[in-house]
Amino acid sequence: MQEYELAVLPGDGIGNEVMPEALRVLDVVGAKYGVRFGYRHFDWSCETYKSTGAMMPPDGLARLRDHDAILLGAVGWPGVPDHISLWGLLLPIRREFDQYVNLRPVRLLPGVTPPVRDKQPGDIDFWVVRENTEGEYSQLGGRQGEGTPTEMVLQTAAFTRRGTDRIMRYAFELARELGKPHVTSATKSNGIYHSMPYWDERFAAIAAEYPEITVDQDHIDILCARFVMSPERFDVVVASNLFGDILSDLGPGVTGTIGVAPSGNINPERTYPSTFEPVHGSAPDIAGKGIANPIGQIWSAAMMLDHLGLAEAGADVVAAIERVLADASAPRTPDLGGKATTEDLGRAIAEAV
Amino acid sequence: MQEYELAVLPGDGIGNEVMPEALRVLDVVGAKYGVRFGYRHFDWSCETYKSTGAMMPPDGLARLRDHDAILLGAVGWPGVPDHISLWGLLLPIRREFDQYVNLRPVRLLPGVTPPVRDKQPGDIDFWVVRENTEGEYSQLGGRQGEGTPTEMVLQTAAFTRRGTDRIMRYAFELARELGKPHVTSATKSNGIYHSMPYWDERFAAIAAEYPEITVDQDHIDILCARFVMSPERFDVVVASNLFGDILSDLGPGVTGTIGVAPSGNINPERTYPSTFEPVHGSAPDIAGKGIANPIGQIWSAAMMLDHLGLAEAGADVVAAIERVLADASAPRTPDLGGKATTEDLGRAIAEAV
Ligand SMILES: CC(C)[C@H](C(=O)O)[C@@H](O)C(=O)O
Ligand SMILES: CC(C)[C@H](C(=O)O)[C@@H](O)C(=O)O
Repeated sequence: MQEYELAVLPGDGIGNEVMPEALRVLDVVGAKYGVRFGYRHFDWSCETYKSTGAMMPPDGLARLRDHDAILLGAVGWPGVPDHISLWGLLLPIRREFDQYVNLRPVRLLPGVTPPVRDKQPGDIDFWVVRENTEGEYSQLGGRQGEGTPTEMVLQTAAFTRRGTDRIMRYAFELARELGKPHVTSATKSNGIYHSMPYWDERFAAIAAEYPEITVDQDHIDILCARFVMSPERFDVVVASNLFGDILSDLGPGVTGTIGVAPSGNINPERTYPSTFEPVHGSAPDIAGKGIANPIGQIWSAAMMLDHLGLAEAGADVVAAIERVLADASAPRTPDLGGKATTEDLGRAIAEAV
Repeated sequence: MQEYELAVLPGDGIGNEVMPEALRVLDVVGAKYGVRFGYRHFDWSCETYKSTGAMMPPDGLARLRDHDAILLGAVGWPGVPDHISLWGLLLPIRREFDQYVNLRPVRLLPGVTPPVRDKQPGDIDFWVVRENTEGEYSQLGGRQGEGTPTEMVLQTAAFTRRGTDRIMRYAFELARELGKPHVTSATKSNGIYHSMPYWDERFAAIAAEYPEITVDQDHIDILCARFVMSPERFDVVVASNLFGDILSDLGPGVTGTIGVAPSGNINPERTYPSTFEPVHGSAPDIAGKGIANPIGQIWSAAMMLDHLGLAEAGADVVAAIERVLADASAPRTPDLGGKATTEDLGRAIAEAV
């Protein structure tokens, strides 16, 4: 029997409530396909920070490394500044494990009413490929003149040839694989003077390696507007760390799936484990009530199956999610307009598998 | 008779087609309110760049300075890289004339079908207050190792106390004036390590000066999603240069008004002229056909009237735009689903005034 060792980090808030449902579904789909998942649990969170002054132990990354993949819930909690919690746990994992692809689907699902009109499931179905290790998310910079009227803060983004080229190649390879031969680049080279013209330059260079794939590029401002006005035109969108972050929340916002959207933080070379986590956060407003929607976590687990080479099992889980969502008599959590608990919905999906 | 001297820069593409309609409306509303507008025309554009190597003459800014306001069409044309054309004309005007507020309404208009469902005119009506002179739009940075595999580009954003505080105060003052006592700050302090935590710090400090105004802050990713999911919750949104750029295109994208949205680049102290320009660009695809929608330019002129202290005249023009849009038998340009020309629509609005 094939075995996979997974690191499980529920993190904060509803992360702790949705994670068990993802493991439930993994157990079921594992049994079906004859694979076993072992789970090593790590309780690192803002609680850890409050009691130890760090989000994880000094050897935290080393302890995660020796796993086939990482399942993460959500990081962040009121009382701990976001840049402390995220730069103390989530972002070091992405960077140290060279998870340079952040991959997120934007898909209109059956049974979900999106905020945009006149769209049917199938109309909107594309991927945002986000650079996940450099760019605008950077600790380069600092402050001078603290507390004075001439106080000033500099923040430096770094774009390397290596980092830029590899994320673009990933996007083109994905487009090729999906048989979706169109790639859109998110830019802002009319306003951001150095980095974005460079981004455009590399996009043109990499696009030339894929002559069969058509391309276009939009400045991020109009691109965001187009996500709302004509989301059906996209296949694969490649973007910098910040622009990808924006687009991969906006996309699920447009399809009404922000509470259920998954993501993969992927190291394509498999030198390091990849991390799979829902797009939603720790949701302090509903945490502890047992009513969080577990689909984002379960769908993230499905993306993990895909990454581990268990594509059929992954597709099975996504199909189960779609069936449950489309079934008006199936349990629905409050965000979907129902009264079901996290566990009700998790069980329904496990059964559908 | 009160007289105003305006600098008129149609710029590129459809800028040249929509500008005459704005002047037509200004003449009519001027006659009605007993004020006269003098126009000095400047043909600076990408054409200028192609023939002279610069977007404007060396004394360009000095020649603009001595006007009561600047009306701008659109800057940018294929064949001239965007960062050349914009940093050669539009952005220097904003910076040299210390137009540190970029003000844009997001409003659902009668007669316009937005891409989002279940919203009525009145439901969505708020302002984006964008910092317009510093932040992420910066020429600080550069490239090393050009052409080598270790090539790297740094791009530095600069946030000053002065620049941050004054845009936030403007937003709070606007909220107070509008009787809309809620201000939302666009941030990304969970990912962008130096500048955005500083932005939050200053937002908290300035908010404390306005205890009667309620506030919240959203990270730009979820904020963009909320623009689509719940646009009715916003009154005044204050944002950095880049985030404000994104939000002020996304907002009109959500209301279906991207082709008609106006903007003011305002120097509130009136030390320098302010610039008023539509949000749309030069639209090479339809330029020269005489079918561009002139409402963005006309509405921008209305914002200018407001800024010049002619609030009643400005409101009159906005009301005329709304009446024409709501009137199913009035001319409509193709973007609004009709067959009218730029001039037809401009005349209809002039007559409605
Ligand atoms: C053309 C471009 C530089 C400009 C900007 O980003 O400021 C435009 O998008 C705008 O919003 O006025
Ligand atoms: C929490 C935050 C740092 C993170 C990001 O911006 O990358 C989140 O928004 C995401 O998209 O995973």
